[in-house]
Amino acid sequence: MRDFSKDHRWLSLNTATVRKQGDLLAIIDACARHGIRAIAPWRDRLAECGVPEAARILADHGMTVTGLCRGGMFTAGDGASDDNRRAVEEAAAIGAQCLVLVVGGLAAGSRDIAGARRIVRDGIAALLPHARQVGVKLAIEPLHPMYAADRACVNTLAQANDLCDALGPGLGIAVDVYHTWWDPCLEAEIARAGTHKGRILAFHVCDWLVPTTDLLLDRGMMGDGVIDLPAIRRQVEATGYTGPREVEIFSKDNWWKRDGDEVLRTVKERYATVT
Amino acid sequence: MRDFSKDHRWLSLNTATVRKQGDLLAIIDACARHGIRAIAPWRDRLAECGVPEAARILADHGMTVTGLCRGGMFTAGDGASDDNRRAVEEAAAIGAQCLVLVVGGLAAGSRDIAGARRIVRDGIAALLPHARQVGVKLAIEPLHPMYAADRACVNTLAQANDLCDALGPGLGIAVDVYHTWWDPCLEAEIARAGTHKGRILAFHVCDWLVPTTDLLLDRGMMGDGVIDLPAIRRQVEATGYTGPREVEIFSKDNWWKRDGDEVLRTVKERYATVT
Repeated sequence: MRDFSKDHRWLSLNTATVRKQGDLLAIIDACARHGIRAIAPWRDRLAECGVPEAARILADHGMTVTGLCRGGMFTAGDGASDDNRRAVEEAAAIGAQCLVLVVGGLAAGSRDIAGARRIVRDGIAALLPHARQVGVKLAIEPLHPMYAADRACVNTLAQANDLCDALGPGLGIAVDVYHTWWDPCLEAEIARAGTHKGRILAFHVCDWLVPTTDLLLDRGMMGDGVIDLPAIRRQVEATGYTGPREVEIFSKDNWWKRDGDEVLRTVKERYATVT
Repeated sequence: MRDFSKDHRWLSLNTATVRKQGDLLAIIDACARHGIRAIAPWRDRLAECGVPEAARILADHGMTVTGLCRGGMFTAGDGASDDNRRAVEEAAAIGAQCLVLVVGGLAAGSRDIAGARRIVRDGIAALLPHARQVGVKLAIEPLHPMYAADRACVNTLAQANDLCDALGPGLGIAVDVYHTWWDPCLEAEIARAGTHKGRILAFHVCDWLVPTTDLLLDRGMMGDGVIDLPAIRRQVEATGYTGPREVEIFSKDNWWKRDGDEVLRTVKERYATVT
């Protein structure tokens, strides 16, 4: 397993972690102050300054872009397809290592989760040729089952692996400990993903707090919750994964209220000590 | 599939649905007013009047007791074992068709979910001989993965089926749509449970609301959410299940605040129309 205790070169900051603390340039400046060289922006951060300007800022600062959040929402209706093509192009424009897909939940007014899953499969299949053409990898992010209704009906690594098996090259998986730590098949499905070189495209960390007070915006800093982070990292790295480990924390009542430098200092310290 | 539209003989009321509206006798009186003949009490309702008195009240009113909630919490430490033996005896005393097991989450201070699952397995194995001796079936209730840390580390029907396969007679499963509706393996695992006669010991319904505002206490009335209740019932009944369907709704800001008769009227109406 890689030694993270004195080396944070694999640390990537997902901009959602400091969503309330500044725009893209402010976040990049903060990363520079803390020696963080990789970032995964959300599209709203690109939209604020425009994608060409965002691409220029990222390049000028020598930032590695480990992923763009997000495409997906295939069940949202006809607009999803155009928006996903734009997301692919934005990912290409900023040189992102992948476009993260949050695939969408039930269609409006529907209770048909099997049908939603078919829509997602078809949507990814339709998007893949364009993504391959422009050289952008698509990373399915299975979300926790508590988001099955309204955010993502792909809720296990097994489902994501099945989709990758079915749809072929250019498609991979974003493994997020928050969404997957509970899964009794986690270790087996990480190993299964690992049998396909490059299938694990991203590895996200934060922590599960007890109690969790909000379904969406109460994620914990690594070390403050109950996820066995070293164990999951060991499983992921056992597949040969040598990519970034990205810190993504949605925390409306705690980390989003703190000073951005304090957040980044804590991220780095926890990154080195508890994970 | 059974016709529930004009026949509520299979309706059982879990007392949690009217947790704030009265004690056991008040709930039974309300059931009598609405022609509900089956009930699944929680142990706190028994404790209020004492188990012998509760047994007498239930018998005097001719109530079918479809289950007792709950035993389990095997990861809570040494006290769990004695408490579970008491729960088994209480279930026997009131003639409950099963004792529902909420198995417990991570042990205090632990991040070892695989270890928690081993403790649960050993705990059920240790409890089973006593349960068999007094003729009480144990029903493992897989809880939604959002409760993996603090309530139950058995989160899928697959895990529950595996435990039943491993531990043998006297053990079965409580299928609750709230906990399982998202599971891509749901239909397959219901069918798998159905290959063992009597393994499905209980079938609980409510609904998943969008949005869900509280992880524990914001369950919906059947029909108000996104669960395809008829589809899951069809799967359960296809196994040959002819037992009760129990309504269990935790709803601190809605149904717990309403008049008990309104709740029961609504339960009956939805039971007949949307499920």
